[in-house]
Formats: sequence, structure tokens, C-alpha cells
Amino acid sequence: MIRIALDVMGGDNCPAAAIEGAVRATKTMEDIELILCGKEAQIKAELDKLGADTERISILDAQEEIDCHEQPTAAIRRRETSMVKALNLVAKGEADAVVSSGSTGALLAGATLIVKRIKGVKRPALSPLLPTVKGGWIMLIDCGANTDCKPQYLQQFSVMASTYMQSVMGIDKPRIALLNNGSEAEKGCELTKAAYKLLKEAPINFVGNCEARDVLSGEYDALVCDGFVGNVVLKYTEGLAGSMMTMLKTELTADLRSKLGAALSMNAFRRFKKKMDYKEVGGAVLLGINGCVIKAHGSSDAKAFASAIKQAELFSNGNVNPKIAEAIAELPEEE
Amino acid sequence: MIRIALDVMGGDNCPAAAIEGAVRATKTMEDIELILCGKEAQIKAELDKLGADTERISILDAQEEIDCHEQPTAAIRRRETSMVKALNLVAKGEADAVVSSGSTGALLAGATLIVKRIKGVKRPALSPLLPTVKGGWIMLIDCGANTDCKPQYLQQFSVMASTYMQSVMGIDKPRIALLNNGSEAEKGCELTKAAYKLLKEAPINFVGNCEARDVLSGEYDALVCDGFVGNVVLKYTEGLAGSMMTMLKTELTADLRSKLGAALSMNAFRRFKKKMDYKEVGGAVLLGINGCVIKAHGSSDAKAFASAIKQAELFSNGNVNPKIAEAIAELPEEE
Repeated sequence: MIRIALDVMGGDNCPAAAIEGAVRATKTMEDIELILCGKEAQIKAELDKLGADTERISILDAQEEIDCHEQPTAAIRRRETSMVKALNLVAKGEADAVVSSGSTGALLAGATLIVKRIKGVKRPALSPLLPTVKGGWIMLIDCGANTDCKPQYLQQFSVMASTYMQSVMGIDKPRIALLNNGSEAEKGCELTKAAYKLLKEAPINFVGNCEARDVLSGEYDALVCDGFVGNVVLKYTEGLAGSMMTMLKTELTADLRSKLGAALSMNAFRRFKKKMDYKEVGGAVLLGINGCVIKAHGSSDAKAFASAIKQAELFSNGNVNPKIAEAIAELPEEE
Repeated sequence: MIRIALDVMGGDNCPAAAIEGAVRATKTMEDIELILCGKEAQIKAELDKLGADTERISILDAQEEIDCHEQPTAAIRRRETSMVKALNLVAKGEADAVVSSGSTGALLAGATLIVKRIKGVKRPALSPLLPTVKGGWIMLIDCGANTDCKPQYLQQFSVMASTYMQSVMGIDKPRIALLNNGSEAEKGCELTKAAYKLLKEAPINFVGNCEARDVLSGEYDALVCDGFVGNVVLKYTEGLAGSMMTMLKTELTADLRSKLGAALSMNAFRRFKKKMDYKEVGGAVLLGINGCVIKAHGSSDAKAFASAIKQAELFSNGNVNPKIAEAIAELPEEE
């Protein structure tokens, strides 16, 4: 049985969406047990409303919740919050995984300080998956956990991403690239130039530099970068997709003929939107932590929560962390 | 008269597109003289073919051209190339501006080493304009000239961008933001945290941090970042726009109804494409150089060249460089 602690507070549609997601997940996954962390009375009422079978669902009462505007390290000192209680379950070995749609900063801080890092891991990394034009997914590592990185961190990220894509996504030899400002080996800023050399030495299928125009090309399975750049790429993806759809919509509604055409193509637009949808793949996994920590999107609905729970199940069954620990131990130490 | 040296070689559609763009430009702009740099016989033949009025068009013969794969500093030592000849015209005061669609690296190196920097400018910056959802433009500075930046460089970039957006784009109080990984003042990596303080002190309308999701929101007129991050954003814009259109096209052609709808909306898609089109605004200007240096897109057509020439005219008439020199001189020196 995989035991997953679900922080039902913190997201835009919480707790209802998280609880509904939990119920859906237990219906389709036979090997999970869920521990819902949040206000017990509220959770019970939601479960009743859904007429849920609660055989593999338990509740851990937590009367407080972390607000996304709180300073992260201060927030995680509040032990009565649903997020901290969920993290503590993993720290104590009472759960294998945490799924939360709450404050990213608090979850990062809590994972690092409460659950702690895998031995040898210098920095945990926030690693979301983006949809590619070929219908697959690319992992972007790191996306905000570490704004200033040393080359060795990027080497560790590459090993963690490769392990994840292999063990969870089932890719035989994940193609790992370095996000850089040119495709040639000698290109880059000080960080990427040094990281390039270390990635070449890492026990991964390193395929060289990837320029930003090729991020979603489907030619790569994971892209390594520092957390500042990754955060920019991740947020820009959201923003640009939205901006482009706004611009396109303006044009599609500018004349009657286009309006009619757009109405006819509505299903195609829906399918496109679904393809661009993070809800299909779960959340961003925090790699390098001694347990599975999944950050679900703040606006997750029930389906997105169910996907994130599925991701936690795959992560735990994939034996990801022991493999990461082993691979990290084999990397040469920083001189 | 504004004298503009046009490197007619180096781009995908060169020299034909550059020469046709030059002819178009002289027809619509009364106050420019163009010096076409490239193979004289070829240029003459193109001009004849177009039946062009060459009263304000002259030719500077250059038998060599720079390939985009050449090492930049080596490339610009080749004095017989069209790009170097064009740059030398500005260096000698025989032209006010250079427009080239050739190698970005060589143009950066040549501008810095041949035309030279404005007094006090630490680093010139490559500064393209991106279309916003509100129909305006945002300058992204720097986009690749400087992969590793000091905070003071970013302060200078902010002043140069503000001057450009005011003098060339006619924006009264350009809203200058810092591209960062959070909107709060204390957010950022080491570089952006330090730069934030310097931008606050700069004589500009600094409006704070901009998260990547808001780059194209139309809320900002210029966005300051280091050249590595700017390069990633610029190339990702190209790539993501292309990737999204590919994904959308796949869906729009997946069933007959959508196909029909897409056919009806064709004009809307065309208008959208035009809006996303860099050709409307010219090229990326290299700010901080003692002259006007415009990098036209490698795939520029005649229209894009005409736009870049227009941009050079506006730049020169806008008295941008003396204003930049004055503003830079007033910034406190780095301690």
C-alpha cells in the first residue's frame, strides 16, 4: 500500500476539489491509502456529500492553514497547519508521499527542513512537466527552488531528472539537455559553461545544449537549468499561452465570418486547451527529498488532484528515491 | 539627411530582400540616404531589376561576407566583408546607422570594437521589441549581448531602454520593470536583488518586478534582465508561438467540422500572425553604441528591412545617443 498524505487546504478550490480528487483516486487506484489533512468536520461533510467509500481514506485533523503570502520559513513553524502535518507524516515514516496545492515556498521550505534531503543531495529541485508538440512531456528542472546555482547542483538535477523520467514516465534512455543560449558546446554563461562539462561526465544520456526555441519540440525528456531561469520559462509558458490565446480570440471575434468559423472549430480549441493542460499530468515533483513531495497547481480541480495522487503512486512504486541516492553517491565530490 | 549603411548580405533572403527593402524605404522616407554594402555588380543588377530611383542610394563594394557560423571576433577582422565595411562607415562618421541581418555575434563584436561604446556605457545591450496583448510593444533588454551581468549593467540597461522608448516609440513615461521570479521587492536571485535597488535609484519610471507570466501583458514598456535570461525569453517566444500553432493546427485539421471552421477563420489567423510578426517593428537595436546599430532578423523580407530602416531613421532623429550619454553620466559610479 502506498500511503499518501493530502493537504486539502491552500489551493483555490480547496478543500472541495482536493477531497473530490481523493475520492476519485481511491476508486481507480487499488494500492493507495489517503490521509486527508485539514479541518476534520469540513472534510467529513465533503466526504458525506460525495457519498464516498472511506475504507482507504482517513483524516488527520489540522485546524490551521498556510496562506500563500506568508513568509515560508515562518509559515512552516506553525505545526497545526495542514501542510506541516502532512509533511510530518512523511518525516515520521507514516506516509510515503505528500500532495499539496498550497504555497510553493512553504512546501519547498517544509520539505527541506521537515522531510529533509536525500543523503548527498545538495539542493532539492522543483520539477514540473510541460507538454511537447509531439504529445509527450518534458521535465524542467529546477523551476524555482534554487535561484542561484552552482554547476554541481545542475549535475545533480540532471541525474535526478533522468531517474524520474525513467522510473515514473517509463522512458528507457531519457534525453537530458542543458538549457543554454546556443547549441554549440562552448556557448553559455559562466554557470552553463561549467555545468556542460559536468553533465557530460554524469551517468545520463546527455544530448547537449537546448536553445529555448526548442523546449517544447519533443526532442528532449528533461531540461536542466538554474531555478531562476526555470521559473521564468515556467511562468512565461503560462503567460504566453494565455496572451496568445487572448490575441487570437480578439481576431477570431473581430468579424462574423471568423466568429462562425471559430464556433465550428470549438471542439478543436477544446482539445488544444486540454493538451496544454497541466491537469493531465499531475503536479510539479520536488526531487531530492527523502520522500515524495508533489506540488499541485494552485488552481487544481478534482481531476488535477487525482492526477497528482496518481503521480505520487507512480513515484513511490518506481522506487525513485533509492535510485537517486545511488546515482548521487556515485557522482564525484566537488573539489 | 540620415545616412544609413545597409549590409545587404548575411540574411536568409539576401541580398534581394535587403535591396528591395532599401528601395521601398527611400520611397516613403524623404530624409534618408542609403549606402548599400555588398557585391557592387549584384546590387546594381538588383536595383536595375527593380527599376529603382537611385538618387539617394549609393553602393559600397564589399566582395566578402560574414557567415553566421564564424567566430565573431575573428569574423570582424575580415575588413573586406559587407558588415565590417558598413560598421566602418559609422565609425568614420560617414553614416549615422547600420542595419544588418547578418550574424548577431559578429554584429555585436563589430559594433563594440569598431563603432565603440558611448562614453560611460559598461556594456552595450541587444534590445528587441515584442508585441503585447494590448497592441503595443515591450523592449526586452538585454537579449544576448551579455550572458553574465553585474547589477550596474542592468541599471544602465534600464536607462538606455527608457530613453529609447521615450525618444523613438514616443512613450511619455516608459514603465520599466525588472524581470524577476516574484513580484515582491525582496524576491530574486543575487543579481536581481541587487539590481532592484539600483533600478529604484535610476532616473526612470521604475515600476518594480515583473514575473515572466506578465511579459506580454502590456503593463510594461521595457523589461530589464541579463542577456542569458533575455535570450531564453526571446527564443522561447519564437519557439512557443510556433509550438502552440503546431499543436492548434493538429487539432484544427483533425476533423472535418474544425477544418471547415478554420478555413472560415483564415483571415483572423492571418491577422493574428501579423500581430505576432517582428517584421512590423524593425529589428533589435543595439543600445549603448556610438551610433545606431540595428540587427534585422535573419529571415527578414523586404518589408522587415524597410521597417528596420525606418527604425534607424527614428533612432537618429530621436537624438537617442546624446540623451543616453547624458543619463549614463548622471548615474553614480560603481563603488
